[in-house]
Amino acid sequence: MDSEKRPATRESILRSADAHRAFVTKFRRDLHKHAEVAWTEFRTGSLVARDLLSLGGWDVKYGPQLYEKSLMMGMPSTQALRRHSERAIAQGGDKQIIDAMRGGYTGVVATLKTGDGNGPTVAFRVDIDANDLQEAFDSKHRPFREGFASVNDNADHACGHDCHTAIGLTAAHVLYENRDLLPSGTIKIIFQTGEEGGRGGQPMAAAGVADDADYFMAIHMALGDVGMGAISCSVSKQSNSIKSDVTFKGVPAHAGSRPDAGKNALLAAANTAINLYAITRHSGGNTRVNVGVLEAGVGRNVIPPNAFMKIEVRGETRELMNFMQERAEHIVEGAATMYNVEYSITKAGETVSAPMDPEMVDLVAETAGQIPEVKTVIRQRQGTGGGEDCTFFMLRVQERGGKATIANIGTVGPAVGHNSYYDVNEDSLVTGVKLISLVALNALSRGRVR
Amino acid sequence: MDSEKRPATRESILRSADAHRAFVTKFRRDLHKHAEVAWTEFRTGSLVARDLLSLGGWDVKYGPQLYEKSLMMGMPSTQALRRHSERAIAQGGDKQIIDAMRGGYTGVVATLKTGDGNGPTVAFRVDIDANDLQEAFDSKHRPFREGFASVNDNADHACGHDCHTAIGLTAAHVLYENRDLLPSGTIKIIFQTGEEGGRGGQPMAAAGVADDADYFMAIHMALGDVGMGAISCSVSKQSNSIKSDVTFKGVPAHAGSRPDAGKNALLAAANTAINLYAITRHSGGNTRVNVGVLEAGVGRNVIPPNAFMKIEVRGETRELMNFMQERAEHIVEGAATMYNVEYSITKAGETVSAPMDPEMVDLVAETAGQIPEVKTVIRQRQGTGGGEDCTFFMLRVQERGGKATIANIGTVGPAVGHNSYYDVNEDSLVTGVKLISLVALNALSRGRVR
Amino acid sequence: MDSEKRPATRESILRSADAHRAFVTKFRRDLHKHAEVAWTEFRTGSLVARDLLSLGGWDVKYGPQLYEKSLMMGMPSTQALRRHSERAIAQGGDKQIIDAMRGGYTGVVATLKTGDGNGPTVAFRVDIDANDLQEAFDSKHRPFREGFASVNDNADHACGHDCHTAIGLTAAHVLYENRDLLPSGTIKIIFQTGEEGGRGGQPMAAAGVADDADYFMAIHMALGDVGMGAISCSVSKQSNSIKSDVTFKGVPAHAGSRPDAGKNALLAAANTAINLYAITRHSGGNTRVNVGVLEAGVGRNVIPPNAFMKIEVRGETRELMNFMQERAEHIVEGAATMYNVEYSITKAGETVSAPMDPEMVDLVAETAGQIPEVKTVIRQRQGTGGGEDCTFFMLRVQERGGKATIANIGTVGPAVGHNSYYDVNEDSLVTGVKLISLVALNALSRGRVR
Amino acid sequence: MDSEKRPATRESILRSADAHRAFVTKFRRDLHKHAEVAWTEFRTGSLVARDLLSLGGWDVKYGPQLYEKSLMMGMPSTQALRRHSERAIAQGGDKQIIDAMRGGYTGVVATLKTGDGNGPTVAFRVDIDANDLQEAFDSKHRPFREGFASVNDNADHACGHDCHTAIGLTAAHVLYENRDLLPSGTIKIIFQTGEEGGRGGQPMAAAGVADDADYFMAIHMALGDVGMGAISCSVSKQSNSIKSDVTFKGVPAHAGSRPDAGKNALLAAANTAINLYAITRHSGGNTRVNVGVLEAGVGRNVIPPNAFMKIEVRGETRELMNFMQERAEHIVEGAATMYNVEYSITKAGETVSAPMDPEMVDLVAETAGQIPEVKTVIRQRQGTGGGEDCTFFMLRVQERGGKATIANIGTVGPAVGHNSYYDVNEDSLVTGVKLISLVALNALSRGRVR
Repeated sequence: MDSEKRPATRESILRSADAHRAFVTKFRRDLHKHAEVAWTEFRTGSLVARDLLSLGGWDVKYGPQLYEKSLMMGMPSTQALRRHSERAIAQGGDKQIIDAMRGGYTGVVATLKTGDGNGPTVAFRVDIDANDLQEAFDSKHRPFREGFASVNDNADHACGHDCHTAIGLTAAHVLYENRDLLPSGTIKIIFQTGEEGGRGGQPMAAAGVADDADYFMAIHMALGDVGMGAISCSVSKQSNSIKSDVTFKGVPAHAGSRPDAGKNALLAAANTAINLYAITRHSGGNTRVNVGVLEAGVGRNVIPPNAFMKIEVRGETRELMNFMQERAEHIVEGAATMYNVEYSITKAGETVSAPMDPEMVDLVAETAGQIPEVKTVIRQRQGTGGGEDCTFFMLRVQERGGKATIANIGTVGPAVGHNSYYDVNEDSLVTGVKLISLVALNALSRGRVR
Repeated sequence: MDSEKRPATRESILRSADAHRAFVTKFRRDLHKHAEVAWTEFRTGSLVARDLLSLGGWDVKYGPQLYEKSLMMGMPSTQALRRHSERAIAQGGDKQIIDAMRGGYTGVVATLKTGDGNGPTVAFRVDIDANDLQEAFDSKHRPFREGFASVNDNADHACGHDCHTAIGLTAAHVLYENRDLLPSGTIKIIFQTGEEGGRGGQPMAAAGVADDADYFMAIHMALGDVGMGAISCSVSKQSNSIKSDVTFKGVPAHAGSRPDAGKNALLAAANTAINLYAITRHSGGNTRVNVGVLEAGVGRNVIPPNAFMKIEVRGETRELMNFMQERAEHIVEGAATMYNVEYSITKAGETVSAPMDPEMVDLVAETAGQIPEVKTVIRQRQGTGGGEDCTFFMLRVQERGGKATIANIGTVGPAVGHNSYYDVNEDSLVTGVKLISLVALNALSRGRVR
Repeated sequence: MDSEKRPATRESILRSADAHRAFVTKFRRDLHKHAEVAWTEFRTGSLVARDLLSLGGWDVKYGPQLYEKSLMMGMPSTQALRRHSERAIAQGGDKQIIDAMRGGYTGVVATLKTGDGNGPTVAFRVDIDANDLQEAFDSKHRPFREGFASVNDNADHACGHDCHTAIGLTAAHVLYENRDLLPSGTIKIIFQTGEEGGRGGQPMAAAGVADDADYFMAIHMALGDVGMGAISCSVSKQSNSIKSDVTFKGVPAHAGSRPDAGKNALLAAANTAINLYAITRHSGGNTRVNVGVLEAGVGRNVIPPNAFMKIEVRGETRELMNFMQERAEHIVEGAATMYNVEYSITKAGETVSAPMDPEMVDLVAETAGQIPEVKTVIRQRQGTGGGEDCTFFMLRVQERGGKATIANIGTVGPAVGHNSYYDVNEDSLVTGVKLISLVALNALSRGRVR
Repeated sequence: MDSEKRPATRESILRSADAHRAFVTKFRRDLHKHAEVAWTEFRTGSLVARDLLSLGGWDVKYGPQLYEKSLMMGMPSTQALRRHSERAIAQGGDKQIIDAMRGGYTGVVATLKTGDGNGPTVAFRVDIDANDLQEAFDSKHRPFREGFASVNDNADHACGHDCHTAIGLTAAHVLYENRDLLPSGTIKIIFQTGEEGGRGGQPMAAAGVADDADYFMAIHMALGDVGMGAISCSVSKQSNSIKSDVTFKGVPAHAGSRPDAGKNALLAAANTAINLYAITRHSGGNTRVNVGVLEAGVGRNVIPPNAFMKIEVRGETRELMNFMQERAEHIVEGAATMYNVEYSITKAGETVSAPMDPEMVDLVAETAGQIPEVKTVIRQRQGTGGGEDCTFFMLRVQERGGKATIANIGTVGPAVGHNSYYDVNEDSLVTGVKLISLVALNALSRGRVR
């Protein structure tokens, strides 16, 4: 692109974005009200796809082609999927598109060719799923007060993915409106399912949807340390984690009259729990382990024939994570042997860490400086040990020579992520729209890197 | 009573009982279809009371006066009680009587004076609650096939209390019809709530409802070792048990970023579980301990702030039971100290053992021999370690000089008690009616024992 | 035997026994002072054998021929055996006999033929080993005060086997002196090694040393419930037990700098310990489990690479004992799997229960009544759950048609068995001599039973 | 000091040091052969004091005045101290000095005033105790082959403290010989007891023996990463650790006949062990925990009445160490409550981390460069997570404005520290003597810093 034209294009994009302030807010609130958890984002995905299709210029893909099926973990039962898709239709989802998403294929990938289409590819990832959480029904909570608290039980956008989705969709509008001003190349927006629990990123990345990216940026709203009017251009210390469901299966028996006829699954689980936390610290770096949920037994006077546990292990590196998982598997097997019960370990999710590319961090930092309301540009935010699965895309992009990072859009709110009182300052939505749109402009201007 | 008149009276009673065959069966099936668990037997209790009131001769008592309130354990929440009483009314319960039973006072005590009322008192106990169990909806299961499987979720008469209630009520009819033939005295039928979990017997006994009994008999249907056409006149080895609910309360924290900020209630529970089973065997006799249910945690990546356990201890004697409970309490306290979490131990039920009085066993044995279809009379059935709380009545009666036992009415069925396929041969219902009615006759004939 | 001669023979035997009062006491004290634990009774065994040989009439056997080698459990190391045999020689043991006992074959079997040798065989078992215990060096303790406390470290006759040995040897003198008065037959006295820990009985029984017995009696001193001047003719409820040594072998590592390089054997042992006690109670009867000793680790800052445990399981029946052992083995294996360490389980001893034959109980009861100082004859003593391994002989005898029992000789003392202050009233020694000698007379008089 | 004279002084010192090569080697070997563990260094301390006193110029202090008594942890029993002091005398220790060291006060502090005594104070710390370890008696092991392996059981200089002591004493000779060439000031050499287990540094530091130091240097031999001919001028990441001895006291009982009469200390210990390792990881940094030794029980068939554990916790910071210790104490208390046993937690040692002052690192680096045989100067060695208690002196010095560091003297040997085959290349001893002597020269030349 003729670099002289760039300031004008930038101005045009910023104006477009400002003009969509009402749109992005309204769409975000609509998603918030109809929150959908991992693999069940039928309404969300179908509305995103329908809106993009209605624009005309974007190529819109959804359905099984976007997923490597063998890596889709933690999928609800067929009945549960059906119930959720029916609810989605009842709540205004697009029936035809939802039919194509059957089986939990609720993600969307939108692609826009600009100029002659030759040039670099810049890809963005926004995640669309809600948390397994009951939102606060409390007049102190703005979403409740203003009527957009989630009407769906145990589904609450308490991690800002409603914002991400709305930002991504709105940026698609802005870029479409400015398509003739942009340098040649390809812009891609990935609406990813199931980030919570680390479930959607891996199968979509493995299907290759971001493989052609020269530039890749994932976005996330940030409370607390980043702050309103600030953008962080990378995050340190993403966590590597494996999430597993563990079951033990024993034999029930009357605890008074025939306890010896039972095989006690609860005791296998209890021993597993304690010994998991007792896995040795590692000289190679930080590790974590948690048994988040344990449920066992059927009745007070029955030797418990069943136990179920949700566990996770983390490591500062993938090696440490694997060390923890291997030890965990020994413990589960040993506890089952102790009580002569059967066991299973099913992977329910995974997150990995990925490096942040300095070139991409530079590009985001430069872009952030071009957004009028952004007062602070942070090159690197200190991570808090949480996991992200956009890293699966990043690693694929980086293996192929592309450059990737995660940007955080500062905002403020009354409660931390994954809390039922989570909310954001919606002024930051437009900032997010500008960030994606201008990064697209600047990336296409830089040319291919591979 | 003139002993010459007794054979004629006996014949009259037997005829009356046979005439109520359809009644007892129909009432049992109605109760089976509308099974109600401990403390929520609003429909059951109110229909029993209404029917007895309609007869005219029986004095009918219900409501708080029948209970020592401080001993009512394992009571559902006020909301749950309200929901159940509304359901009871919707299913045909008597609204006015149910209003008087509010708070879970669902038992009924009926008293009939015969002759001049001078003479001994004979009391019977039948229990009226169902199990916390989902009945089998399976065409192999007769109650389902014939349309009287329980329509209430997680409430299933899988221990025969529907039979006991129907037998008790029908015996009231039979005795009423023959009231003028009976010797002078008092007949009492106690319709007891909440036998499951050992909850209703203790507070009703403590309120004194059986204190005036010279003779006391509880009945129970018996599958398996007793057999159709047999009656057992006593049961050995009733279990002494204490049932408790244990909770631990900690502090949640993100398991990746701030695990040290949490206080782990799950680990307190897991340590409790293992160490409860590890309580030492006792040289004084058999003991038991069980953790029937353990539920802990809120999410995979959250340090678990909560845990709940249903436990029970048993002992061959009350001393052994108390030894187990005392050790259990140490373990719960110690585990809470280990993880710096709060704890509570709430008694949810209790059963005790009571001796069977030979005089009462003789009386039942003699009576059983007078029932034409009874081919076998067993003086003492070997108990299976299960608990009963009619023993609370028995101990009160015995302390005051009365004589008590538990009679088992043999029947056959496809599955053991507390199984979702439990059923009985309904021919045994009339046998039960005869047993109660004739024991009343024979007891009144014997005169006072105290 | 001519039954007329029997009273005279009895009188002669009683006189002989009384004449050995000083001998039995002195020999008991000599053994007490030089206590030797299981498999190391070199001095004890060799002095018994030498004395018997010196009498001339007894056939005396010792050495490997008396043992089924594959069943000799819990044997000390070769070095330890050598050290003990050298100490035995230094303390006055017979070097030549000790040489033949090398390898721990320290038992002795003495046989006396009477008359023409045709007739029944009556066998007696006395055990000769001491406890692994440090005797009290305290002037309150008579053996210390009177100079016969054990001079051998961690070896203390605190279970009366010094008495049993002395009684057995003295009875051999008495019987030898009266050999011409006795009916025809065979008298056998088995001086058994290693009763403590259940080690010597099984291999000696399996070698067939008691197989020809028509009558078999083991003796034991009894404190407490039996009492001075009383003899009990049988014991109920012998325990069935398996004793095992468990080891775990891991990998050491510096606990500060490389904890992850270690494999923690201590944690495998700790998990084993808790879960062993948590093995379910059994509806079939009493069981026991104990971890008597646990030793693990090498230094405070080293991940523990080693652990050693002494465990035992017991059952009211052999089936229950085997149930416990099978569960215990699962737990050890599971704990090793948990911590990825190696393990071994080595049987260190076993005791079994055996029935008491009424015919033999009768014979002992009759005999006890013939001893002037015996004022009380108890047919059956209530056992205390302790184990005995004379039962291995009893079961062999009974399988072949012989009759067997255990007799207890009442005495009094200041402390219970296995206590470092254990002592007896030595007047009961002569009573024991009389019991064996007269049972021999009466058994030979009765004739063969098989 | 006139800086022109310094090179000449340096040369003189280097010559003196080289002249003491045989002395330092011989003294090191003598100490190695008579190794003494913490608080029992009677021979070592008395020979150091006697030799220093014989020089004349050094002020020599020993005995209780050097210790804050309340902080002397892990002290052997009075009997053990007596036995060790008698052995020390028998092995050539100075009886009179040893008498003054009675009670374990075995350290020595030597002070030399130079010039007019005005000027800075430079202090050195050498530690004098051996490891609780049996030295290898193996001809592969040079100390054994050459006749200077430790003759004292379970006492082995496997951490080089024999070298440190010999270097310190030899440097005292060298400095004394050159006293007239040195600038005015004070030189202090602290011969510290009980570094192993973190026991001697804290009470000597608290007694103020290093409080007046402007400059402070501790020395340690270094194998492995440092290398022969190299000196490291500081060490990163010293560990903060608390070492504790934990005991549980229960009640014994026969495990077969009266298990319920016992209180099981072994189970309290086993629960403690597992749950100590299960203390949560901390978001604030690295932590460690270890149960290095667990010993419990008295006999296979006795409910274990006793348990003993050696534990330690570590933290990257003192806050983390205290977090671990506080949690550990909760666990011990909770486990004792569980089994109704008594417990005690006794602090057995402590190490802390201290910063390395850049000024002192510079001084050591400059000095190291002046030693001809030193080819490599390392500013900072990566620590391995081990602990040191010279840091207690460092923190006192730093609080008062002084500058402190730890220097490592590279050497080579066949085995790592705390291994029974540990040995050093004795050429490095003279290098150590030069380092101390020249650091003294250079420090005095720099003048006071506070």
